[in-house]
Amino acid sequence: MLYFMSDYTEGAHPGVLQRLTELNMVSLPGYGEDEYCEAAKEKIKKFCGRDDLQIQFLTGGTQTNLLVISTMLRRYEAVIAAETGHINVHEAGAIEYSGHKVLTVPSRNGKVVAEDVAELAERFYDDGTHEHMSFPGMVYISHPTEVGTLYTREELRKLSEVCRKYDMPLYMDGARLGYGLMSPESDLSIKDICELCDVFYIGGTKVGALCGEAVVFTHGNMPRGFTTMTKQQGAMLAKGRLLGMQFDALFTDGLYLEIGRRGIETAMKLKKAFIEKGYELYIDSPTNQQFIILSPEQYERLSKIAAFSIWEKIDSSRIAVRFVTSWATSDEALDELISQL
Amino acid sequence: MLYFMSDYTEGAHPGVLQRLTELNMVSLPGYGEDEYCEAAKEKIKKFCGRDDLQIQFLTGGTQTNLLVISTMLRRYEAVIAAETGHINVHEAGAIEYSGHKVLTVPSRNGKVVAEDVAELAERFYDDGTHEHMSFPGMVYISHPTEVGTLYTREELRKLSEVCRKYDMPLYMDGARLGYGLMSPESDLSIKDICELCDVFYIGGTKVGALCGEAVVFTHGNMPRGFTTMTKQQGAMLAKGRLLGMQFDALFTDGLYLEIGRRGIETAMKLKKAFIEKGYELYIDSPTNQQFIILSPEQYERLSKIAAFSIWEKIDSSRIAVRFVTSWATSDEALDELISQL
Amino acid sequence: MLYFMSDYTEGAHPGVLQRLTELNMVSLPGYGEDEYCEAAKEKIKKFCGRDDLQIQFLTGGTQTNLLVISTMLRRYEAVIAAETGHINVHEAGAIEYSGHKVLTVPSRNGKVVAEDVAELAERFYDDGTHEHMSFPGMVYISHPTEVGTLYTREELRKLSEVCRKYDMPLYMDGARLGYGLMSPESDLSIKDICELCDVFYIGGTKVGALCGEAVVFTHGNMPRGFTTMTKQQGAMLAKGRLLGMQFDALFTDGLYLEIGRRGIETAMKLKKAFIEKGYELYIDSPTNQQFIILSPEQYERLSKIAAFSIWEKIDSSRIAVRFVTSWATSDEALDELISQL
Amino acid sequence: MLYFMSDYTEGAHPGVLQRLTELNMVSLPGYGEDEYCEAAKEKIKKFCGRDDLQIQFLTGGTQTNLLVISTMLRRYEAVIAAETGHINVHEAGAIEYSGHKVLTVPSRNGKVVAEDVAELAERFYDDGTHEHMSFPGMVYISHPTEVGTLYTREELRKLSEVCRKYDMPLYMDGARLGYGLMSPESDLSIKDICELCDVFYIGGTKVGALCGEAVVFTHGNMPRGFTTMTKQQGAMLAKGRLLGMQFDALFTDGLYLEIGRRGIETAMKLKKAFIEKGYELYIDSPTNQQFIILSPEQYERLSKIAAFSIWEKIDSSRIAVRFVTSWATSDEALDELISQL
Repeated sequence: MLYFMSDYTEGAHPGVLQRLTELNMVSLPGYGEDEYCEAAKEKIKKFCGRDDLQIQFLTGGTQTNLLVISTMLRRYEAVIAAETGHINVHEAGAIEYSGHKVLTVPSRNGKVVAEDVAELAERFYDDGTHEHMSFPGMVYISHPTEVGTLYTREELRKLSEVCRKYDMPLYMDGARLGYGLMSPESDLSIKDICELCDVFYIGGTKVGALCGEAVVFTHGNMPRGFTTMTKQQGAMLAKGRLLGMQFDALFTDGLYLEIGRRGIETAMKLKKAFIEKGYELYIDSPTNQQFIILSPEQYERLSKIAAFSIWEKIDSSRIAVRFVTSWATSDEALDELISQL
Repeated sequence: MLYFMSDYTEGAHPGVLQRLTELNMVSLPGYGEDEYCEAAKEKIKKFCGRDDLQIQFLTGGTQTNLLVISTMLRRYEAVIAAETGHINVHEAGAIEYSGHKVLTVPSRNGKVVAEDVAELAERFYDDGTHEHMSFPGMVYISHPTEVGTLYTREELRKLSEVCRKYDMPLYMDGARLGYGLMSPESDLSIKDICELCDVFYIGGTKVGALCGEAVVFTHGNMPRGFTTMTKQQGAMLAKGRLLGMQFDALFTDGLYLEIGRRGIETAMKLKKAFIEKGYELYIDSPTNQQFIILSPEQYERLSKIAAFSIWEKIDSSRIAVRFVTSWATSDEALDELISQL
Repeated sequence: MLYFMSDYTEGAHPGVLQRLTELNMVSLPGYGEDEYCEAAKEKIKKFCGRDDLQIQFLTGGTQTNLLVISTMLRRYEAVIAAETGHINVHEAGAIEYSGHKVLTVPSRNGKVVAEDVAELAERFYDDGTHEHMSFPGMVYISHPTEVGTLYTREELRKLSEVCRKYDMPLYMDGARLGYGLMSPESDLSIKDICELCDVFYIGGTKVGALCGEAVVFTHGNMPRGFTTMTKQQGAMLAKGRLLGMQFDALFTDGLYLEIGRRGIETAMKLKKAFIEKGYELYIDSPTNQQFIILSPEQYERLSKIAAFSIWEKIDSSRIAVRFVTSWATSDEALDELISQL
Repeated sequence: MLYFMSDYTEGAHPGVLQRLTELNMVSLPGYGEDEYCEAAKEKIKKFCGRDDLQIQFLTGGTQTNLLVISTMLRRYEAVIAAETGHINVHEAGAIEYSGHKVLTVPSRNGKVVAEDVAELAERFYDDGTHEHMSFPGMVYISHPTEVGTLYTREELRKLSEVCRKYDMPLYMDGARLGYGLMSPESDLSIKDICELCDVFYIGGTKVGALCGEAVVFTHGNMPRGFTTMTKQQGAMLAKGRLLGMQFDALFTDGLYLEIGRRGIETAMKLKKAFIEKGYELYIDSPTNQQFIILSPEQYERLSKIAAFSIWEKIDSSRIAVRFVTSWATSDEALDELISQL
């Protein structure tokens, strides 16, 4: 079976695993206070070109979204997300479980646009009864989005501007950030992200780690007590080294970007093949998730040789499906799939 | 520096790491739905001698305590723990953050005793105003306890009896269970635990894994929606394989007990040395945590060659300290430490 | 100034206040355990024609919605409401603060319709990833709705059927129930409500009380520990008598329905006058809230003599406004307003 | 039956009820934005001799404690209380339900003393692992306490000093404040309270109102969004006038203090009678709650003619009981009880 189900179906990138193996017997303090966590933070700062960042490692995406959003919002505030935003749909109501409403704006090709946020905020503050409502307190975006699309620099700049106007931190979920940074269609750099977002995370789980995400606060705005709240949420690893060493490996010798590059390269090759063979794209994605429309017959046939997922049943004759590539996608698997299209 | 700080200062037991390495490139479904999680569950059931157990893997101890306790309690119920219980002291108020009070009973050598629980429950139900109070809804114990002590079979039986009388599930935190099971002073078997507790967890993080704990529900009592609530709390790993493969390795060829055995063997050798050299025990622990009373001079001298932790400053001339051994404690380090006592 | 702002702008109906005054010096137990609470419950049961109801008095609408919904939902469940539902918009995120998501369906003239709920539930259970999502666990409706409309018996029957199919309790917010029951256009009786809803509340605050709502569980389904959770939420009055005596008065000699009748009578007279004088209705409401479209000039002029509220600015030439009548609306005020239209 | 059960067993002081009756038909805005709420706040400021206070009316004591504590604590902070503190025992775990731990210090005759708080805070900050623990973030006291005792000015000054040293707001639960202020044994004035506490509440429910407490923030420290959080907790009355008018009445012509005076006068007469007739005091209370030790025979006899409550069964021959007086205690009832002692 050719595996295109997702970008978290294999273990770690061999370079990451090697680092864990080499350092396995070194005795270190727990809870992320070891030297490898420190080194990894320094390397990430260098990668971002900024030495004033505050960085914390966490284990997974939902955990990170939950901790960041719930510690940055005031109790009476809500977070704004696209209707399709991961926190609004696929995180089991984690944000609400932490006490906060998710206010939605339309998904514009997977993205939150500045105009919609501005309108929501204006309407809110114009409303004479707004003290009886959840205050818009933060904006959540994902980059790449859940449907593989990317913010342009200009889109992010405008969104950031609206957020600052209404005093709402802008938070970017970068679960697949490595793939976004390496997409040839993107003009958004990591420096731009540091400048325009108040907080974001650099995804590890989907970009070569066994687990792990690196949260980055961009202007000294890490919430007071963040470490204690990490513990309080059950999100602190005793062996914090597991995260530190992996990110240390990912940010040594350009491995993180190399992983991103490989995911994009294979995705673009696959996309091109789909197009050439006459398949219709469901979404035109510039990243490692590709969304294709299949007929039931095509679906039947391809699902015998490849593992991929149904995204949406459009109607009786069209099924939107998702193929995902990653650092782990082999040329052999890719060529074999393409030959069968 | 000789490292006796804790049992989570190295990476994984080499056997665990090897399994992760061997299976690294196998493509598998996410979220714990892979065959290695399944296999690990089967091996744990076999280890427990019971095929009706419900098992779920989680990442760390606080996370596990938080999820188990908050999903088993009704909203108006509290959990009973010893004053020294980990959930009452060192988990950053995680239980309270989930909405529940921790009701305390005295620590009897680290343990919760049946009589204290019975008295608390009786007093509660006798009180005419108890509808205005948090209901005692569950009992939390750790085995080994935070101070290394162990429940006897009889102690646990009596506690279990009280719990069943008052309809309070009995929950055992087994962060260091492997060491408890292999202590020669213990008469409590894993089968006893399955019979007497309603839920417990088999600790991995402190017993050879990089991370991971296995929660075991003993009589079909896993809360409805447990998977969704795991996700909701940010406690679900996308690469659930990381936990499954590690527990698969730990429960293959007796590795879990072998790790426990090694931790106990080294701890007993160290304890014997302390006693022979005239040191006073602060607590007489039959497991891998040893508590010794040092003078300030002794502390000064030993802390130059070994890493260990201060447990309590008793008075100006006595410091209680903790030395912890584990699977990772080498004979060389142990002998060197003993020679320096 | 003629007051048509809302139905909670005066104190209590004189009959209610009289009861409080008469019984003021009687010494009684606290926390709702007095004989007047008991008597009021009996009268409500009689009013409903059912002696197996469980009834609890609370102080206000948001408090009631919060307590009922948060105690009936399981931790991983969400409540379904219309987009315009009070809990989704004007209760400051209280439901989310209690840990639960509000899932929305379109507002069909202020109402939730069975088809939309069925579609949401079907889509949810069909989704292979639904374990990572908030489960639909309850349906919230208001009757009359926030825009004054009413469910027909048939609409409620169909909704109830869907709710039972998917094991979701149906909850009716009856903040203005008295007005709904007395609308000549309604075919829905209190007996129907008891039969078709799992829980509902009979609003007091907007129907003649100083404060107070009576929650009714219709089939022995009051959540275990409800009294304790009422206290836990800060929703229990020490002088529970304040609620019991008011409801006792409201359900003596038909006062509750008489209040409803008077609110409807005045509203219909006002509606008729608006129509006759050529005003356009924004919503055709059969209850005590009337929604009219005004030009800016009309708004300007009327707002000099009467207090009413802006509902929505439709466009630059049309403003939707709301006039509310109640038991307290006098003939003089009404006639004066009509003469000025 | 002579009623000495508590100070909330009758309705409102006649002066309070009269105000509600007089103003019943006045049309007013909802949610506490009416002129009577405003007037009541002004009168309370005058009573306190300070015009910079921020005041909000709430309905009951548990509700007030819950809202104040949960909005003033940071998420990782706990509140310190005496073991006997109302929030620790009789509020159904409301504080924990809001996510915060209650840290306890010994009850020193019902009171929290500065030394105990200082020791707790010092121990906490000295502990190397304190980032894994709930931070002490606030101190809760009641005045009069749950056992009727009072803080002296010096005790409160020292406590306030410790609180400020460790940046923990000092919060006084004044459910029975009126009785405390009028006790001849007290040297603590309302001005002292305003100066030494960061927030406190003036109890209405137990001091002549049907319901209602007035929260006072003493130095511009009302939490941002307090109104919205009041709504979010279900603690906002639509007819806020009910609270405003009652406090307006209580703080007109010295009624609040007059009520306190009457409660104290009757309590002292009763206490004197108990002492003269040879009864032993369980606690020597200078306020309106009197704690007496009875033999089983005395208890049997007195409980036939009077309603009072058992406080604690000391041993088989001694029962501690509580008699409570209030503004509503009549001379007749008091004399009759005394004659029967």
